[in-house]
Amino acid sequence: MTAPAYRRLSVEERRGQLITTALVLFAHSAPEDVSLDDVAAAAGVSRPLVYRYFPGGKQQLYEAALGSAADELRQCFAEPQTGPLSHRLSRALDRYLAFVDGHDAGFAALLQGGSVAETSRTNAIVDGVRRAAAEQILLHLGVREPGPRLRMMVRTWIAAVEAASLIWLDENKRPPLEELRDWLVDHFLALLAATAAADPQTAEAIRGALALERPDGPAGRLARRVAPVVGDALHLLGDL
Amino acid sequence: MTAPAYRRLSVEERRGQLITTALVLFAHSAPEDVSLDDVAAAAGVSRPLVYRYFPGGKQQLYEAALGSAADELRQCFAEPQTGPLSHRLSRALDRYLAFVDGHDAGFAALLQGGSVAETSRTNAIVDGVRRAAAEQILLHLGVREPGPRLRMMVRTWIAAVEAASLIWLDENKRPPLEELRDWLVDHFLALLAATAAADPQTAEAIRGALALERPDGPAGRLARRVAPVVGDALHLLGDL
Repeated sequence: MTAPAYRRLSVEERRGQLITTALVLFAHSAPEDVSLDDVAAAAGVSRPLVYRYFPGGKQQLYEAALGSAADELRQCFAEPQTGPLSHRLSRALDRYLAFVDGHDAGFAALLQGGSVAETSRTNAIVDGVRRAAAEQILLHLGVREPGPRLRMMVRTWIAAVEAASLIWLDENKRPPLEELRDWLVDHFLALLAATAAADPQTAEAIRGALALERPDGPAGRLARRVAPVVGDALHLLGDL
Repeated sequence: MTAPAYRRLSVEERRGQLITTALVLFAHSAPEDVSLDDVAAAAGVSRPLVYRYFPGGKQQLYEAALGSAADELRQCFAEPQTGPLSHRLSRALDRYLAFVDGHDAGFAALLQGGSVAETSRTNAIVDGVRRAAAEQILLHLGVREPGPRLRMMVRTWIAAVEAASLIWLDENKRPPLEELRDWLVDHFLALLAATAAADPQTAEAIRGALALERPDGPAGRLARRVAPVVGDALHLLGDL
């Protein structure tokens, strides 16, 4: 009942195989360091066959691989809307950071800019992933019509996560992935609290979110650790 | 005693005049929408004269204008090391955001990536500005040998400021500049507190900084506004 080792692939299967092969190569090298011959060799096919599927050559194959990676990333964000928000965020970040870990050089080349393969199309694919991430977060915050403050907060945090990911790759993947994840969750909660300070919609969202948090979870750990730091600043509360 | 209206400029003066003229044009347009003829016309000189000073043509002139803008930005960050940290940060952000306001389209084209004028040299200029900003912040935090957490925190916040600036331009410069500035200061203080939760060096830096803050300043305002939000989450402190 096993499939023959060299059976003929369908058009869709062959296309998928080439994209998957290309994605593996583009994951660990900058686009300029991957040739069409590399992809053909890794897929065990001829160069003309690659061109038959991707007449636009390497750039077209790169964009197809990027599109496939973008789909994979969108799946990282999918998370059931149950349980404390900080737990949901931790799980999504675990998947996202595992993706960054597994596509290190390609991720860095793509986001650091100045890549030869960067076009308005590749930028649109990356922006689509950012938008999907922002929509997921707002969904989990239970906000249907987010105002400008909350939208800016979420988009800014996503930019901070990207920057932290690039720094993490640049520093040879230190600190350990779990520490980076916890810090990014803390960052989100702190930013949410700071934004809630001046925005009623965010204040309502954080109130709902905090009610579901537990003392033994990320938010509880952060609250206990921040309490002494903030305790040093009680003079700031003035005559309240 | 007035200078003659059409006196001959020295080589350095002419070069400076061309760069200043180019910067004004590049500030409000994407590089692909500015031609060398535009620069020559705006400077009141001939196209061959521009080429005499910039044999590399538009790209060389763009990079010179970018270098000049980078110097201007570095000056935005200079701030005496006296008074509360949040006041210093507010003043530096006022200058930075005024720069963003005054160089809107060029700033967006540069940082959004995918620009035809983007090269490893332009990326290096932009990274140099980011490094200068990070060094200034660490200096004001009174930290001489910053550890990885504090460095990542500062670099991540700078990325968040850039992202917020781009969103601000994209949303037709709303909210008002002062509100954006206050939110970015709040963001910094919240992130500093969250990072201090797990990093002793950051905890020491924030302790020193908070001692200088005043109830009527940004940190006091944030503390009073966050207190009720966090007050809803006292259950998170557990049995502490």
